[in-house]
Amino acid sequence: MEKKERPLILVTNDDSYHAKGIQSLVLAMSTLGEVVVVAPDKPQSGMGHAVTIHHPIRVHKIELPYADRAYACSGTPVDCVKMALYTLLDRKPDIVVSGINHGSNSSINVIYSGTMSAAVEGAVEGIPSVGFSLLDYDADADFNASMKVAIEIVGKILNDDHFPEHVCLNVNIPKGKEIAGIKVCRQAHGMWIEQFDKRVDPFQKDYYWMTGEFIIKDKGEDTDQHALDNNFVSVVPVQFDLTAHHAISHLQNWDLS
Amino acid sequence: MEKKERPLILVTNDDSYHAKGIQSLVLAMSTLGEVVVVAPDKPQSGMGHAVTIHHPIRVHKIELPYADRAYACSGTPVDCVKMALYTLLDRKPDIVVSGINHGSNSSINVIYSGTMSAAVEGAVEGIPSVGFSLLDYDADADFNASMKVAIEIVGKILNDDHFPEHVCLNVNIPKGKEIAGIKVCRQAHGMWIEQFDKRVDPFQKDYYWMTGEFIIKDKGEDTDQHALDNNFVSVVPVQFDLTAHHAISHLQNWDLS
Repeated sequence: MEKKERPLILVTNDDSYHAKGIQSLVLAMSTLGEVVVVAPDKPQSGMGHAVTIHHPIRVHKIELPYADRAYACSGTPVDCVKMALYTLLDRKPDIVVSGINHGSNSSINVIYSGTMSAAVEGAVEGIPSVGFSLLDYDADADFNASMKVAIEIVGKILNDDHFPEHVCLNVNIPKGKEIAGIKVCRQAHGMWIEQFDKRVDPFQKDYYWMTGEFIIKDKGEDTDQHALDNNFVSVVPVQFDLTAHHAISHLQNWDLS
Repeated sequence: MEKKERPLILVTNDDSYHAKGIQSLVLAMSTLGEVVVVAPDKPQSGMGHAVTIHHPIRVHKIELPYADRAYACSGTPVDCVKMALYTLLDRKPDIVVSGINHGSNSSINVIYSGTMSAAVEGAVEGIPSVGFSLLDYDADADFNASMKVAIEIVGKILNDDHFPEHVCLNVNIPKGKEIAGIKVCRQAHGMWIEQFDKRVDPFQKDYYWMTGEFIIKDKGEDTDQHALDNNFVSVVPVQFDLTAHHAISHLQNWDLS
């Protein structure tokens, strides 16, 4: 087999290009291929699969250590991927890599996560994609172990000629140096119990801050949460076909007009 | 069986409470139960499953015809559902109903859609939920046929003691009066081919508008797109477990550390 050209790696995130997480990821990816960064110019956590429809989008070139090229984008993480694929890149990237997120995207967090939505968008486009998240919200978190994990997993994807089509990976990395290993998992069933912290502004108007507590409703030993609780890196394959196939036959028994 | 109390119906959308679509839905739902509206105070199309983390959220009471109570919320559609469940409602609603969206949410659009993300959030909370969308972007679209469909489907859900847990429905309604019927379907595989319309502002800086063309890559006769193309209402059960279960065994063959 012919030696392939150097793989083209598109890097994005949701914490913005200022974040230590993406800068660590760029350094890690620069050992594997040509790195182009298109990342938000401000934090976009919790943006889910949002796209910018009613506003224009701005992009400008920036300098980022270890990146071959880098751009800051005013849009969401999904906008960044679309902008890269349809405007900024000359060829289709071999992989879309998102992160490294400051904080967990395990379990239900996958649907709120801008980091993971960027990876899902890569999968929609038919490009192997992966999002990385470290279970540490600290702006100055230690990404050394995460960088090794990212190099291993992106290497596996790039060398896998049969990587499942229209799938991306949700990789979460436990905090601390003693990682027990890497486990392929399913998404645990969990949810946020929200609290709205009600306050009064200086003009006597109410406002709320959304805070919450994450709870797991799933004791499965094959879940991402179980892996992380036991100090394993979790790898969940993620798809964008949201059809609840198991529910179709039930609904077909309804006597619909 | 005892007669149940009047069902509590939470109504939201992503086009804001000003939209004809939600006002039509409120009228339709008022025939079935007590209606509380918590809807965005401005358009939130394309917001996907975004939540508001870095900003405070404002809510104020409004008057809306046929609603028992109504609130405008500064947040995203998902914020509206969370705010309703955790702050504004005294009891758990019997159903979360989102829409009627001005425009299609079939196929891949489900993941970009604020309308559908609100319904998914209801399902995460264990509440039967449904999103309705009419294939007509006109602000003054004719919602008469859609209202009948909404009454039929919400009635079915409310009377179904075995409605699948943690599932919501994505209901799309073709434009025009001659509806051929209602079909239970799976999500068609489709995607947007984007175009970025590059312009220069009065200050000589570039900006982009994202536009695109939707393409279907799936000829399946069991898809929502096929149903809609044949003038049927499409009903897709939607889940929030994004795990690509079929891909797990492939990944388990990787020799991971």
